[in-house]
Amino acid sequence: MLIALCAPCYGAASQPTIADLMDSSKPTDWRSVDHNNALYMDVHGGQVIIELNPKFAPQSVANVKALAKEKYWDGLAIVRVQDNYVVQWADPNAESADKKKKLKEAKEHVPAELDHPSEKDIPFKSLPDKDMYTDKVGFSDGFAAGQDLKKKRTWLIHCYGTVGVGRDNAADSGNGTELYAVIGNALRPLDRNVTVIGRVVYGMELLSTMERGKGKMGFFEKPQKPIPIRSIRLASDVPEKERLNLEVLRTDTKLFDDLIEARRNRREEWFQYRSGHVDVCNVPVAVRIKP
Amino acid sequence: MLIALCAPCYGAASQPTIADLMDSSKPTDWRSVDHNNALYMDVHGGQVIIELNPKFAPQSVANVKALAKEKYWDGLAIVRVQDNYVVQWADPNAESADKKKKLKEAKEHVPAELDHPSEKDIPFKSLPDKDMYTDKVGFSDGFAAGQDLKKKRTWLIHCYGTVGVGRDNAADSGNGTELYAVIGNALRPLDRNVTVIGRVVYGMELLSTMERGKGKMGFFEKPQKPIPIRSIRLASDVPEKERLNLEVLRTDTKLFDDLIEARRNRREEWFQYRSGHVDVCNVPVAVRIKP
Repeated sequence: MLIALCAPCYGAASQPTIADLMDSSKPTDWRSVDHNNALYMDVHGGQVIIELNPKFAPQSVANVKALAKEKYWDGLAIVRVQDNYVVQWADPNAESADKKKKLKEAKEHVPAELDHPSEKDIPFKSLPDKDMYTDKVGFSDGFAAGQDLKKKRTWLIHCYGTVGVGRDNAADSGNGTELYAVIGNALRPLDRNVTVIGRVVYGMELLSTMERGKGKMGFFEKPQKPIPIRSIRLASDVPEKERLNLEVLRTDTKLFDDLIEARRNRREEWFQYRSGHVDVCNVPVAVRIKP
Repeated sequence: MLIALCAPCYGAASQPTIADLMDSSKPTDWRSVDHNNALYMDVHGGQVIIELNPKFAPQSVANVKALAKEKYWDGLAIVRVQDNYVVQWADPNAESADKKKKLKEAKEHVPAELDHPSEKDIPFKSLPDKDMYTDKVGFSDGFAAGQDLKKKRTWLIHCYGTVGVGRDNAADSGNGTELYAVIGNALRPLDRNVTVIGRVVYGMELLSTMERGKGKMGFFEKPQKPIPIRSIRLASDVPEKERLNLEVLRTDTKLFDDLIEARRNRREEWFQYRSGHVDVCNVPVAVRIKP
């Protein structure tokens, strides 16, 4: 098998592997996903759960929550699946003034929230590893984030599973009605170009396995049909017994530091060569159902 | 739409976009995929084509070609699909001495070919962009590659679509019977740990959309079933009328330099922020059917 877990691991006592470290996690190494900041998407025969991050994009997240409240996406669709790029959902009739779905409480216009001042309310655990796209990368409460030290700005990074606000050419032309998730290699060139609202924390494979759109840029064109969305709900509006109590591994702990070091220099016997570096998008932030 | 192509592009005359540059390509900007170095994989209702790179892994590629010649994989299966990681194919009975498929001309043992001396026979077009995993990255005849300048070694990098030789803990424990393709974020920590033999140049979406394995590390376990492989053939053994004449964009041209610059600093009006950097795994090397 490709990645055999070590048996026995060398220096196991002093150099625990990723698996060893995960096994050692305590309840306090995890935090709950807030039901007021999670979306349940019923699509493709299953459930995708997105954790929203209102700190980085307060107005966009508020509008996305308003859209979920008014059941905006129910009956709309996945309109684009581009291999090694994004899955995107929207109103297939968005460009028809007559046919497009009307908004109720949600706003037509929301400002762009491409980055945020690096202030106290924005937690940031920086990685010692350098990054080629910006000054500093790290994690903000479990979300991969970047920083510009001179301009003192912080933003969420486009890794696998990142969810953002689709828009037209104007920076503020996205109101959250059209969202996308990254399903391939990290899309770092999109950082600071789009408002990021969160990341997929459950059911990612429902998005990543979707049939690719054969039109330009992966859009569905006839005879292909968009993939219908049954519903998107704020978790707090989902009946309690249908909710999952998800927990995300905390990224501000010694355990997380140790995990990153175990990933930077893989200790499993399988590895012949240790890269000595970790890329922010190569650090999966674990999610589990609360035991 | 998420990535609107520019209309009009600013500075269009002096600053062509990626689309402009691709439209300007001449026949000499492309090279053919050699039918003696391509595998046709009939799987999942379609065809996946892998271009082999014998320069970097001569013995492994020779053995993989011998395996294709003796129809080794016909009737075997995709045994592992791990989301954001790899699709892997092998003999589902590989661990049973009785049941496993016997080799004919192909070798049981092949040395590890993890990297290669940086010599004249290894073309290398380096990117000016720095890389955090190694001294230099660039392209070798269309394949993403890395270099260690001190040790004077060159190797193929694990980007989306890279194909390598699965192995057990010993570096030389893979003989090519078990192969994998990267279906998610670049797996740079695998560089120099595994023998890379090529990359998927056609039908990638057949691999990336496969149902994920629910077992540990994405292996298929009951009641899930492995996904059968109908056949894998060397292109030169495929009837001529069933072959595709594929061309890969050359990476040693001025056009390719220009394309990389257009990707480093995206010129489409959509982009508010230009990253000023390009990651070697964020440069898709175009493939087309010969016009």
